[in-house]
Amino acid sequence: MQLKELRDIQGEQDARNIALDKVGVKNVSFPVLVMDKENGTQSTIASVTMSVYLPHEFRGTHMSRFIEILESKAHERLSPMMLKDIAKSLCEKLNASRAFISFKFKYFIRKAAPVTGIESYISYDACYEASLDLNLNKFDAVTGIIVPVQTLCPCSKEISDCGAHNQRALIDLKVRTKGLVWFEELIEMAESSGSSPLYTLLKRPDEKFVTEHAYNNPRFVEDTARELALKLDEDARIIWYKIEVTSCESIHNHDAFAEITREKLN
Amino acid sequence: MQLKELRDIQGEQDARNIALDKVGVKNVSFPVLVMDKENGTQSTIASVTMSVYLPHEFRGTHMSRFIEILESKAHERLSPMMLKDIAKSLCEKLNASRAFISFKFKYFIRKAAPVTGIESYISYDACYEASLDLNLNKFDAVTGIIVPVQTLCPCSKEISDCGAHNQRALIDLKVRTKGLVWFEELIEMAESSGSSPLYTLLKRPDEKFVTEHAYNNPRFVEDTARELALKLDEDARIIWYKIEVTSCESIHNHDAFAEITREKLN
Amino acid sequence: MQLKELRDIQGEQDARNIALDKVGVKNVSFPVLVMDKENGTQSTIASVTMSVYLPHEFRGTHMSRFIEILESKAHERLSPMMLKDIAKSLCEKLNASRAFISFKFKYFIRKAAPVTGIESYISYDACYEASLDLNLNKFDAVTGIIVPVQTLCPCSKEISDCGAHNQRALIDLKVRTKGLVWFEELIEMAESSGSSPLYTLLKRPDEKFVTEHAYNNPRFVEDTARELALKLDEDARIIWYKIEVTSCESIHNHDAFAEITREKLN
Amino acid sequence: MQLKELRDIQGEQDARNIALDKVGVKNVSFPVLVMDKENGTQSTIASVTMSVYLPHEFRGTHMSRFIEILESKAHERLSPMMLKDIAKSLCEKLNASRAFISFKFKYFIRKAAPVTGIESYISYDACYEASLDLNLNKFDAVTGIIVPVQTLCPCSKEISDCGAHNQRALIDLKVRTKGLVWFEELIEMAESSGSSPLYTLLKRPDEKFVTEHAYNNPRFVEDTARELALKLDEDARIIWYKIEVTSCESIHNHDAFAEITREKLN
Repeated sequence: MQLKELRDIQGEQDARNIALDKVGVKNVSFPVLVMDKENGTQSTIASVTMSVYLPHEFRGTHMSRFIEILESKAHERLSPMMLKDIAKSLCEKLNASRAFISFKFKYFIRKAAPVTGIESYISYDACYEASLDLNLNKFDAVTGIIVPVQTLCPCSKEISDCGAHNQRALIDLKVRTKGLVWFEELIEMAESSGSSPLYTLLKRPDEKFVTEHAYNNPRFVEDTARELALKLDEDARIIWYKIEVTSCESIHNHDAFAEITREKLN
Repeated sequence: MQLKELRDIQGEQDARNIALDKVGVKNVSFPVLVMDKENGTQSTIASVTMSVYLPHEFRGTHMSRFIEILESKAHERLSPMMLKDIAKSLCEKLNASRAFISFKFKYFIRKAAPVTGIESYISYDACYEASLDLNLNKFDAVTGIIVPVQTLCPCSKEISDCGAHNQRALIDLKVRTKGLVWFEELIEMAESSGSSPLYTLLKRPDEKFVTEHAYNNPRFVEDTARELALKLDEDARIIWYKIEVTSCESIHNHDAFAEITREKLN
Repeated sequence: MQLKELRDIQGEQDARNIALDKVGVKNVSFPVLVMDKENGTQSTIASVTMSVYLPHEFRGTHMSRFIEILESKAHERLSPMMLKDIAKSLCEKLNASRAFISFKFKYFIRKAAPVTGIESYISYDACYEASLDLNLNKFDAVTGIIVPVQTLCPCSKEISDCGAHNQRALIDLKVRTKGLVWFEELIEMAESSGSSPLYTLLKRPDEKFVTEHAYNNPRFVEDTARELALKLDEDARIIWYKIEVTSCESIHNHDAFAEITREKLN
Repeated sequence: MQLKELRDIQGEQDARNIALDKVGVKNVSFPVLVMDKENGTQSTIASVTMSVYLPHEFRGTHMSRFIEILESKAHERLSPMMLKDIAKSLCEKLNASRAFISFKFKYFIRKAAPVTGIESYISYDACYEASLDLNLNKFDAVTGIIVPVQTLCPCSKEISDCGAHNQRALIDLKVRTKGLVWFEELIEMAESSGSSPLYTLLKRPDEKFVTEHAYNNPRFVEDTARELALKLDEDARIIWYKIEVTSCESIHNHDAFAEITREKLN
């Protein structure tokens, strides 16, 4: 059997006259080395989605080439620039004018407890998303991170003789930037926008600090979204952002959320 | 204790000068009666998200009012018109200019096996999404349904001496319409776009039919998306659609997908 | 084409000499009417798993018969007795000596806010599980419900000058009983074992009550599990129970849990 | 503020007279180095659960010590022996007589396409679970791996004039062993028990091979479970196993499954 004997159905002409916005692969697990501010790189595992624009005249794309291109980058450091390289290769190898890529992965940092200073790992769900449009000669990259925080309800604190309901909340942040912004910087902005950061390891003096700090710093989901927006507005490197804060209310069996998307004017 | 004594923190002024695109509740489970083409209504369970635009001058929204409005509709028939009523109430009770709502729910139909005709239930994940903008005097509604089908690979069939890999694929379809389009109609269009519909109950003659029908009707994810797009293009009631087909490839541990979004020109 | 012409591969002899503990179908969505203490029945949607023991001499089971038996019960009221009927039918129609069934479904109750008394829906994840062994002439049924509550940390309260971290926690309770125990009764026992029940709709006086009640009633996951165990120990109808409490810690990005299983001695 | 001033609520006496089977932490994300047959070790990310038995006389456990013990193993190679070390430390530091641990993680191997030999990564969901009982002086370890395969329906092939429905299926395998058994060995046994292994990267000659190989090798879920059981029965290192095969039927919107658990007699 010879490779060339096997008919290339995907490459045949298509008469339906319908172009497809995206055709590709998703949920590909892949080990990656991610840029790490403290250590240069860290090993993690990505769930990868890759697709291209398919013009109306072709019946299909060649799915195996997505994996070949991904494999060719196996030992490179994952960054927005690597996504640009992949996008270029996708356009070239698949005769496409546009390519779309996302890598989602856990990102670990060492975090010190606020009083005892004891360090432990804490993980965040991070992502890079990118698209390349050869016709417009435009490359677009989005950096994302989901940061869990505590939110303590200002209303509950105000109206109650003691205590205040609080809960874990997730800040889902995406940004477009001019130049590099570290995950650590985005995490710091997000964590300081809720009532308190979260920690994996807290001893009793730390737990006392976190409890009191949150109580003295009550934040609605609306407050958390706005506090983070203020910081992103002030940072000239951030040119676009989307914030979604979801609070797993400890008094309800449903969630509260707040959302804001902003394109900065130049 | 009197209600009026408890300070309304949410209603206070906010000095940060940041409006929020959406503030509200999500993942609220609620029993609903949905419009059903065969039986008038069917009982199902929705996961509800509701939010409003929050102008910069207010600190927060009043989350309990979302639930009060939802409760006030507890015995009404869920439809895009009911979402419009909810949106109006949200805008009114929360002094908002925009409201956003989504209901996601399982939708059941009775489906006859293709040869024996034996009927059984099969379920689909359906949704209604809507927004109301009082400033623009614009109500927008989207109807969605996720339809599982079989896709049988044309390439695998062509190059192989026998058999062809096939698998379950999900067609995630959203439409904007002029007038009513039944879920049953969207399901029929989607199911006829893959290699075969799925069934809950098949006897051997049915299984033979489904196997041979799929083998004689090979479809890539690209084909499935395009076949469905052709049908939606031909239906004058459909004014916008988004199709995403995801195929859980039986030869890979990742998925293939194709996506197309179209706004029809008038 | 005639049904009898199609060879019954599943019914053929198997020479591998390996019996299978369970063979069947899972994740079958099915609309059901569940026993409801207040209203007689409520409509909900179940995810159904059904299986049988397969002796070593048969190659396979007949998967379509599981669905036929389920369909034959479509308009009956779901209860442990209905599971017994299904189990009997499975054993009979599939020539099996043992059958296993589970139905998982959302269960709604109307709950009044603690001060204003305003009612709203709240949902719980419930289940019935059953097995029938014809050789031992033994029918076994388990009733389960997952009850979300608030837990407020006693340590955090004790060591902090103000406030205390609290969060949503899930009590996953399964029981074997002599005679009927309503979901409402299990929910009441579970909700009174945490720091506070949850509610879908709370006005400010209710939120004040819930906040203060939880603060005055601090409970570790260990406490919650034990408080519930005490109540189950005292109820003579309960002959076996399993409790797993999982607390979505608002100071950590991981969860705390406590587990206890007890068979009561007669 | 001094650590010793803060009252240790967890360490206080409990009067309820109820011991807890397990108390601990779950869903802790942690970077780990796992034993790798080809390369010595591989970097991956685990979701960790750790718990201990809590005697009736103590109110609670000390949750932070679980994390301290986990952190102390941060640079060691994950293996059943490391779980034994963790279990010993848990018992010692928490004054417990029993400890329970599980690590779940993705495990990657390089797999060659069956005809072209092109290599690519493929990932599996693996786990180690262990318990230590100091009273019984017993350490127990379970190794698990979930292996996706293709199953092609023998009945569909037999009764149809052409084709046969096939789909992705998951083999969830757990084993207790005497001595080391590599993940690679378990994967090989599982992959050869379905109709075909899966691959991340297949060129057309490979796809032809996989399609024909699966067609010539039809397997029910029952067959897949039994074929794997035969191999595990023959391997003297395996002293206990549990197999659950779940097939995402391409003709249904529900799944078929088969399950078998066996303790080997000595």
